[in-house]
Amino acid sequence: TSPPPPALTPLPDAMLRVRATRERKLSHGDALAVKQALSVPGQGTRDHSPAHVVLRDRLLAAVVACFKRHGAAAIDTPVLELREMLIGRYGEGAKLIYELQDQGGELLALRYDLTVPFARYLAMNKITNMKRYHVAKVYRRDNPATTRGRYREFYQCDFDIAGQFDPMIPDAECLKIVHEILSDLQLGDFLIRVSHRQILNGVFAVCGIPESKFITTCSTVDKLDKMPWEEVRSEMVGEKGLSPEAADRIGEYVQLHGGLDLIERLLQDPKLSQNKLAKEGLGDMKLLFEYLTLFGITEKVSFDLSLARGLDYYTGVIYEAVLLQQENDHVDEPVSVGSVAGGGRYDGLVGMFDPKGRKVPCVGVSIGIERIFSILEQRVAVSGEKVRTTETQVLVATPHKHLITARLKLISELWDAGIKAEMMYKKDPKLLKQLQYCEDTGIPLAAIVGEQELTDGVVKLRDVATREEVDIPREKLVDEIRRRLEP
Amino acid sequence: TSPPPPALTPLPDAMLRVRATRERKLSHGDALAVKQALSVPGQGTRDHSPAHVVLRDRLLAAVVACFKRHGAAAIDTPVLELREMLIGRYGEGAKLIYELQDQGGELLALRYDLTVPFARYLAMNKITNMKRYHVAKVYRRDNPATTRGRYREFYQCDFDIAGQFDPMIPDAECLKIVHEILSDLQLGDFLIRVSHRQILNGVFAVCGIPESKFITTCSTVDKLDKMPWEEVRSEMVGEKGLSPEAADRIGEYVQLHGGLDLIERLLQDPKLSQNKLAKEGLGDMKLLFEYLTLFGITEKVSFDLSLARGLDYYTGVIYEAVLLQQENDHVDEPVSVGSVAGGGRYDGLVGMFDPKGRKVPCVGVSIGIERIFSILEQRVAVSGEKVRTTETQVLVATPHKHLITARLKLISELWDAGIKAEMMYKKDPKLLKQLQYCEDTGIPLAAIVGEQELTDGVVKLRDVATREEVDIPREKLVDEIRRRLEP
Repeated sequence: TSPPPPALTPLPDAMLRVRATRERKLSHGDALAVKQALSVPGQGTRDHSPAHVVLRDRLLAAVVACFKRHGAAAIDTPVLELREMLIGRYGEGAKLIYELQDQGGELLALRYDLTVPFARYLAMNKITNMKRYHVAKVYRRDNPATTRGRYREFYQCDFDIAGQFDPMIPDAECLKIVHEILSDLQLGDFLIRVSHRQILNGVFAVCGIPESKFITTCSTVDKLDKMPWEEVRSEMVGEKGLSPEAADRIGEYVQLHGGLDLIERLLQDPKLSQNKLAKEGLGDMKLLFEYLTLFGITEKVSFDLSLARGLDYYTGVIYEAVLLQQENDHVDEPVSVGSVAGGGRYDGLVGMFDPKGRKVPCVGVSIGIERIFSILEQRVAVSGEKVRTTETQVLVATPHKHLITARLKLISELWDAGIKAEMMYKKDPKLLKQLQYCEDTGIPLAAIVGEQELTDGVVKLRDVATREEVDIPREKLVDEIRRRLEP
Repeated sequence: TSPPPPALTPLPDAMLRVRATRERKLSHGDALAVKQALSVPGQGTRDHSPAHVVLRDRLLAAVVACFKRHGAAAIDTPVLELREMLIGRYGEGAKLIYELQDQGGELLALRYDLTVPFARYLAMNKITNMKRYHVAKVYRRDNPATTRGRYREFYQCDFDIAGQFDPMIPDAECLKIVHEILSDLQLGDFLIRVSHRQILNGVFAVCGIPESKFITTCSTVDKLDKMPWEEVRSEMVGEKGLSPEAADRIGEYVQLHGGLDLIERLLQDPKLSQNKLAKEGLGDMKLLFEYLTLFGITEKVSFDLSLARGLDYYTGVIYEAVLLQQENDHVDEPVSVGSVAGGGRYDGLVGMFDPKGRKVPCVGVSIGIERIFSILEQRVAVSGEKVRTTETQVLVATPHKHLITARLKLISELWDAGIKAEMMYKKDPKLLKQLQYCEDTGIPLAAIVGEQELTDGVVKLRDVATREEVDIPREKLVDEIRRRLEP
């Protein structure tokens, strides 16, 4: 399954500030000064702050919940793969692979997606039947022209079904998953564009394209979502060497989109209906739409012949989900604001990793978490929601000096009882500062011990929001805290 | 905080099998044959199967729960760091850093630990006060002599406290965390060895070692857990150029271990008590032991002057936790079976990344999850526990042919209601095969629809364990499933 491109978001302020120091002349005498000025993560990568991580984990949890609802098991593979394993799998993407230095030993590269490692895993372990998910980072040296704002390290969330099954049942489930996730996340209106490599190949064949040019023509067609047809046509003729007539014939097909009606029409098409590949592909597509009707999701699915997807390894159904901009006064039709999921069937990839070439048919989908994340992040920013970055339930506080011992003993009791507790690391912090810390970080309770409380064998439990304070006998404190924190 | 070495576990069978195919002569005519024979992850890395991931996630969840109990927030940093950032931070570890090719642009390397990236993050974002955890993979090109069984990609789980605070309060909390995690995981008996870089430096000074040789002497002392004193001594004299007399004087100190009593004795030591560094360090150590007494954990803590820790960046308290082998008839004293956690104070590291050299004192701990994982894995294997790798609650099944439509409609309803459901991907699977699948994978319920059930508007709900079957009206199915799955 192929990965939608990562999100376009601005660099955080802090990073811009530090980048600026690269240029600044440094007066600091330390020999490390120059290195210090470089203290920023590499180009196209970024640090994730606690608030980032909390939001990201929420999002990943929603995606993983869907994958588990569909019965998938998780695997994990190394970030480092043998370079040989990645070569020739990604078409034009190959030049974006990060390669490691030869430091004596194997030639290694960073994984470019999670699909090729999955295929390698299946072949290596002789697994012929598996439903798995994998949520992990992948690496792409975005070429200079597209670097701005694209991340070079980004998450992918993949779900794949491997095995020899009856047609379109797993394929339909992948589309159901995309539909569930995009609906669950309430990202607004979306559309799942679907096509089929065999239909495209059939189209190319009936338009008179030699088979040797199918893959390269495919990658030109794939640009139709970013370029008008005129430009795509001129790339076909100019760069790819198709005849103008062949390009025009392709143009008539790849600008079509619709539903079951279009599939029926193409099944009657005098040229396509004579082509074996196209006929099989259209048969698949018809069955797929029947299953999607049972799932009740055809409203959001469009059979779209302009969809080609850039990766070499697809062999059957392919799909891509795009979010649609909300309609407004200036725009009559919803406009795509970018791909947030994509995938398809790849029946040949596992065989490439098996010594005997044994094939394991696969189909899968990759959720473009980075783009979705940037949408959710904007939404949180607009809503003014204050994201708590810790889960601390109780601050252990003292009202006077010389009570560090009392605080350490009490917090130790709370930790041992499984209560999430913090204390300030100063020996004698002011009570006001301690209560302010609760308000700043959202800690709901303060457990206060002063001389009097120690003498009385109680702890003053304060509700930070209401400012109510009650003395609780020390031995009942843990139960009282638990009672108050019950949902 | 420094990372304990990863676990020594045998390669999985599947990997050994595939390694064997490297040598095997391939008859398959495909041009990819040679590449196929290499289909194994790189040296020192491994794939994690679903059962592995389930166990690992359980373990990580326990560690993260402890970090959250102590009020830490999570951050994430890139796997790729600028090479400049990592150079000169790791002492002899530097040669194990993975470097990327210069593919035009920056010189990059894979992170070696999570501590240096944390220090860079603090400096870059001008953060002077933070309690954070980070669970992520790090990368080390283990040198050939130690390659066998050590992983080159492995998890670290780090907890660190940054900020200018009163002495030993955060340091004591780090030790409390190690104690909590190792107790929670029930790994058997353990010992936390503690020392202090300033005490060691004081020892070196009073033994007549020039300051320029402190760090290199330190890394030799660090080998005392793997070599007898005689060998360490000969490395000091032979390789490091210390005089035999100085080495002997060092030997008298670094073989000491004990508790508060030893600290008191050294505070009275005629030579050490005259050394400013040692006196300060011993003062810290005394306060630390007082706090650990309040936490009730001194029984598992040993002040051990042979502990030095290999990394350059430590400046104060250092520690390392080891599991002790169960006593048996042949062994009188418990024996260490390897380090499972380590860390210490590093007050200078953040300043190295700040353009103005502003320091942020830090202390932290890293849990050696890989070694712990291999212990837990063995334990699960011995117990015969069958680890479920999916969470599926219901299998949607049919007893006759031609019912794919009924299955797809029903499973779609269950998914939409949030029920974790699977069905077999064959159009007409045998009922026995479907029920067998439930037993094999631990699915507790089967929802069966045949012609009769469709006519009657019911679903036959089967309890897989008891084999009891009850007809449930279709509209009550979701509630009934939820009721049955309640804990």
